[in-house]
Amino acid sequence: MRKMVAGAMAGSLLAASASGAAAQDADLTQASAQAEIENVILLVPDGMAIDATALARWYKGSALTLDSMASGLVRTHSADAPIADSAPAGTAFATGYKSHTGFVGVLPDEATTPGVPTVDPADARKPIASVLEAAKLDGKATGIIATSEIMHATPADFTAHYPNRGNYDALSMQQVYNGVDVVLGGGSQFLTREGRPDGANLITSIQALGYDYITTPDELRQTDAAKVWGMFAPRAMAYDMDRDPAEQPSLAEMTDKAIELLDRDEDGFFLMVEGSKVDWAAHANDPIGILSDVLAFDEAVKVALDFAKEDGSTAVIAVTDHGNGGLTIGDRATSGTYDKEPLSAFIGPLKKAKLTGEGVEGKLNEGRTNVEQVMADYYGITDLTDEELQAIRDAQPGRLNYAVGPMISARAHIGWTTGGHTGGDVVLYTYAPEGAERPMGVIDNTDIAWYMAESLGLDLDATSERLFVDAKKAFAAIGADYRTDGDQLVVTLDGQTLELPFHKSIARLDGKSVALEGVIVHNGKRIYVPQQAVELLAS
Amino acid sequence: MRKMVAGAMAGSLLAASASGAAAQDADLTQASAQAEIENVILLVPDGMAIDATALARWYKGSALTLDSMASGLVRTHSADAPIADSAPAGTAFATGYKSHTGFVGVLPDEATTPGVPTVDPADARKPIASVLEAAKLDGKATGIIATSEIMHATPADFTAHYPNRGNYDALSMQQVYNGVDVVLGGGSQFLTREGRPDGANLITSIQALGYDYITTPDELRQTDAAKVWGMFAPRAMAYDMDRDPAEQPSLAEMTDKAIELLDRDEDGFFLMVEGSKVDWAAHANDPIGILSDVLAFDEAVKVALDFAKEDGSTAVIAVTDHGNGGLTIGDRATSGTYDKEPLSAFIGPLKKAKLTGEGVEGKLNEGRTNVEQVMADYYGITDLTDEELQAIRDAQPGRLNYAVGPMISARAHIGWTTGGHTGGDVVLYTYAPEGAERPMGVIDNTDIAWYMAESLGLDLDATSERLFVDAKKAFAAIGADYRTDGDQLVVTLDGQTLELPFHKSIARLDGKSVALEGVIVHNGKRIYVPQQAVELLAS
Repeated sequence: MRKMVAGAMAGSLLAASASGAAAQDADLTQASAQAEIENVILLVPDGMAIDATALARWYKGSALTLDSMASGLVRTHSADAPIADSAPAGTAFATGYKSHTGFVGVLPDEATTPGVPTVDPADARKPIASVLEAAKLDGKATGIIATSEIMHATPADFTAHYPNRGNYDALSMQQVYNGVDVVLGGGSQFLTREGRPDGANLITSIQALGYDYITTPDELRQTDAAKVWGMFAPRAMAYDMDRDPAEQPSLAEMTDKAIELLDRDEDGFFLMVEGSKVDWAAHANDPIGILSDVLAFDEAVKVALDFAKEDGSTAVIAVTDHGNGGLTIGDRATSGTYDKEPLSAFIGPLKKAKLTGEGVEGKLNEGRTNVEQVMADYYGITDLTDEELQAIRDAQPGRLNYAVGPMISARAHIGWTTGGHTGGDVVLYTYAPEGAERPMGVIDNTDIAWYMAESLGLDLDATSERLFVDAKKAFAAIGADYRTDGDQLVVTLDGQTLELPFHKSIARLDGKSVALEGVIVHNGKRIYVPQQAVELLAS
Repeated sequence: MRKMVAGAMAGSLLAASASGAAAQDADLTQASAQAEIENVILLVPDGMAIDATALARWYKGSALTLDSMASGLVRTHSADAPIADSAPAGTAFATGYKSHTGFVGVLPDEATTPGVPTVDPADARKPIASVLEAAKLDGKATGIIATSEIMHATPADFTAHYPNRGNYDALSMQQVYNGVDVVLGGGSQFLTREGRPDGANLITSIQALGYDYITTPDELRQTDAAKVWGMFAPRAMAYDMDRDPAEQPSLAEMTDKAIELLDRDEDGFFLMVEGSKVDWAAHANDPIGILSDVLAFDEAVKVALDFAKEDGSTAVIAVTDHGNGGLTIGDRATSGTYDKEPLSAFIGPLKKAKLTGEGVEGKLNEGRTNVEQVMADYYGITDLTDEELQAIRDAQPGRLNYAVGPMISARAHIGWTTGGHTGGDVVLYTYAPEGAERPMGVIDNTDIAWYMAESLGLDLDATSERLFVDAKKAFAAIGADYRTDGDQLVVTLDGQTLELPFHKSIARLDGKSVALEGVIVHNGKRIYVPQQAVELLAS
């Protein structure tokens, strides 16, 4: 594995956020030299195209909180593709290593994109420690927040390890057992017996582990527990514009509560906050979904930034993991008129919308006979063409935003290039207390992890060595017998039996439970255990 | 008029580029407190979409010089539209004021975009001083470089004033008489009797004003004149990829020579460099033109940055005036496969191109019977559809890039949203010597002018008051008679006659020529003269 590679290709710069010693041409290794950073809050507006912030600013009518924080750009490619999937893109933020499509918190099989360090074939799919895991071992409090189900790629990247983002059973099991203090978002369905292929009831596990398991905004406001697990929707939470505030808290409310709970730890905290559905709206080319959740995200950034400025020892980073949709203010219809279109040409049609493309789906009756009324009532659109009417009627359940998004876009002259992710650089937003370093220039997505780790005084590679030991090699080295038995590893030595259930952080030594400091990872090929598990037998 | 408005809406930040006093939350008014900045080089890659730099980086295979300089974002709207034309966008950079489509270096009729300061109706279309003009009055050397004709909007914005960018006669006349030390680019045709509606021979004027008028790269290398005017093409220069180096210098070569010439001035210099045709390629959706001229632009940035780092008292800013085309890495065809496409899927088809869409036009024979051969030879494209073949044959002269650009884009999965400009924020690239301030955060395009002026210790509004006095009012105030006579203003007082030819910087007092420190501007409605011209009679 490599150590610090920051700025190797991109010539990244760091600037002292206020006074500070020479930062121009400084390397990230010199970071955190001055101010004490105890807390890091990373906020990810998943899949946010750069024009989305300007659009949200016009729509809102005033500056975004993000605006004051722009300090550079971030490259987003994965180990083998210039356009990244969220799983490797978030893994880069979380761990400092690039990976493959679908790979969560593990090394890639091979790195083929120019400039990406090669991977030892023996390390393929090896779990690598996240900043969250390193912070936890350092005694800090930790939290993750997402508006998607919490098992989704980005939050999973910080709290779990598996080379398939679709394996919610493995990912959520690790999340439950990974000792995160605050977990807020959607996804309760995937914690229930009925919603899981493995049939496990993780909600009882969560409660057994000492979490206050909550499901309403009221409970969120009231809880004062040391560990809180809040699930506010069976799957993803609603877009902010569609949200019922009695049923689901806002991203800003979740961020505020998480900071309140985590900040009680004297050792500091690490918090990751994802505005997950900016990405989903971009896939659908739905500008209302974008506006809804970019503005909700910006409110969460405000909560984080206000705290950081007050606190004085908190760094805040906001950065999307990749572009998506290629949204622009201006489309083919404005090719010849762009500079003559007033603001109202773009914002007027958007202002009429009362729900996102997802939210409006619930307003259609069963036979979809009320399409015209619904589109008039909720979008102010009264000139639907026959093709548009039919497209709405034909939209698959859960895909109405893919139908109406482009219709609103056309009327608001919002352009899109694709229904997928894009490969350009994304905007880096940073805040650091006076005297601390802020990343600037064009940096790599992996540099985000190294910057956060350096700022908090964490050693990610040492944490990986501590948490993820190749079980077969390590137990062989001490002469132990080693076999898998169903969903656990069973190791025997000198009459002792050590059982290590996959994706949990519990060992059973001769039937007696021992808490481990990290999770057992079975990546489908190899098994990795904390060094601590090996020492249970070796000692 | 307003004074400093920096950061009013966008909450801009400044960071000390190295050590420096409190910069977080600082206002631009505190800029230039520490390090002495004597020179400013502003480089403008006109109409560059943000994904263009990532695309150019992949194509080049290594970091861009720009990469190390990214420090924030810039808002680009005009006084009345969220998507700007180059004329007002460049006027914002040059003067600190937003204006209208087509307006060059003059105030708008009215400012209707939210957040833009209102304009006194009496000041409508009033000329406003550029940083270049203020620098010149401060004793600094000045230069402009463009790959378009030098009368084009952006270079004109710094050197001329007229509410119609198409009036090349007025703009170029002012440029010739505005005392710029180094002018390099294309556009000789518009200086000739034959190429001008007014029939003036400006080349003889240029030479009479003491310029070394040159037309070849050899002459550029050899000249050591105090004032140099280099015209390397009748209209725009070629895209860099299509350029014959014996006929036309590169943008980097022009930048290098201009710096060499300007740096001899002990008072420092201001230089504006435009990579003009990035914009034209974007209008045509031609990715090869983009790559050609973004990389050529980046080479010019390298020349400027290398000089600045060596010099120690030079600030460098690179920023496009607006997005254009909505280029993305990824298109509709990759909506479902984006993360599985290797780098070669995007870069492979681009690497085969040997000329831009403009350059290849010259390879087609008169009857365009060799389209297939030319496309195979110069683009490696051997699978043209019948529709594509026909589109190439049907392309209007000078518009072949509009036909072949999309064909290459489709093969390289480069997406576009429009043939026009776009309204999102653009990337701010900055360098300042150790101890000096660098703009960060999201700033307004007008802030670029205020930052440059502050850095150089210039007062733009005072310069406007000195250079652009309402002639009618000013001469009436001293009791002079005032009339227009053809292409000049004639003022009489106490038997003295002052002739002031429009768009020149020469006065004739009783038939005797007097050099003025600025140009006479007739904006079609009112006439503005330097205060100095009034004083010729008033004294």
